[in-house]
Amino acid sequence: MEILKPILNRRSVRRYQDKPVDDEQIRTLLESARRAPSGDNSQPWNFIVVKSEEMRRRITAACHNQKWMMQAPVHIVCVGDMEARLKDLIKKDETIRSTSHLKVQENSALHELKLVIRDTAIAGDHLVLQAESMGLATCWVAWFEQKGLRPVLDIPANKYVIAVICVGYAVKNLKPRARKPLKDMVHYERWG
Amino acid sequence: MEILKPILNRRSVRRYQDKPVDDEQIRTLLESARRAPSGDNSQPWNFIVVKSEEMRRRITAACHNQKWMMQAPVHIVCVGDMEARLKDLIKKDETIRSTSHLKVQENSALHELKLVIRDTAIAGDHLVLQAESMGLATCWVAWFEQKGLRPVLDIPANKYVIAVICVGYAVKNLKPRARKPLKDMVHYERWG
Repeated sequence: MEILKPILNRRSVRRYQDKPVDDEQIRTLLESARRAPSGDNSQPWNFIVVKSEEMRRRITAACHNQKWMMQAPVHIVCVGDMEARLKDLIKKDETIRSTSHLKVQENSALHELKLVIRDTAIAGDHLVLQAESMGLATCWVAWFEQKGLRPVLDIPANKYVIAVICVGYAVKNLKPRARKPLKDMVHYERWG
Repeated sequence: MEILKPILNRRSVRRYQDKPVDDEQIRTLLESARRAPSGDNSQPWNFIVVKSEEMRRRITAACHNQKWMMQAPVHIVCVGDMEARLKDLIKKDETIRSTSHLKVQENSALHELKLVIRDTAIAGDHLVLQAESMGLATCWVAWFEQKGLRPVLDIPANKYVIAVICVGYAVKNLKPRARKPLKDMVHYERWG
């Protein structure tokens, strides 16, 4: 049985051609993310599409100045929205009527945030595999802090940035990186 | 531009045929997950493949007795492993030499756990899209508590179960469910 080509061929790419990604392509990427499954169909994801050099420069700075990021003509910022799980929060505490006062930092203990991160990651993976199938290259970037990246993009404190996905055309096709063998990650019937 | 067929056609399926999934198919699913990207290539995922009726019954019970789960001939339990981020933890606190004493419950505040959840979700999404491309149906299940599901599978307290993915053959092809329109989730250049 064949593994899906975009799964087989995808690589995290950190060198991009000086070649733009057009709006129709970006729309298709977003559409693929939109189709993702989520708990209670809550769709807690948001995407900020950033193309301007100035904004990409500021995002790159917030990502510990990983300079290669500037080579990617598009940054898609994936943001989890706690508002989508508001009803779960109300279930626990009826006095919660809005998440607007919630700060969800790196050290937040909220269980609902974990669900939002999970679902936003799934949507991001859709986008990444879709990009690969269209001949585009990507890289997940998550080396930043909420308090560093949020102000750059005017993201409110009750949203949680889960990643910046860089998108562009790879300078060259890279071979997939090594992974642990299956025996190190697969168990049968129970752990251990 | 066409969206990848498994992204377009995937549905969360809760009615399965009485028809087994063979081991070669399961191996291909796991192989697709193995290829997923992760922060620092840490590959923090583990998968427990459960086929026995007795174990599926116990998993179903721990998932608030969602009886339809018993129709799926395979449950793949996706487990995030904090050990894979041990070096990040050591960076913060040199006295940490092992995560074996850590309990990562629903209300854990560990930032590293959020990264592990993100990466394990990406690997799970690979598996789900691969299944769809092979004519198999799936459903993400995450309505359980760590303390309920872990003992059933002998999963240590420093691992975090992110989902049970049910796998089997759908009774019928369902149409994709509605999603919010793109305009409700996409922003340009900055939030708002």
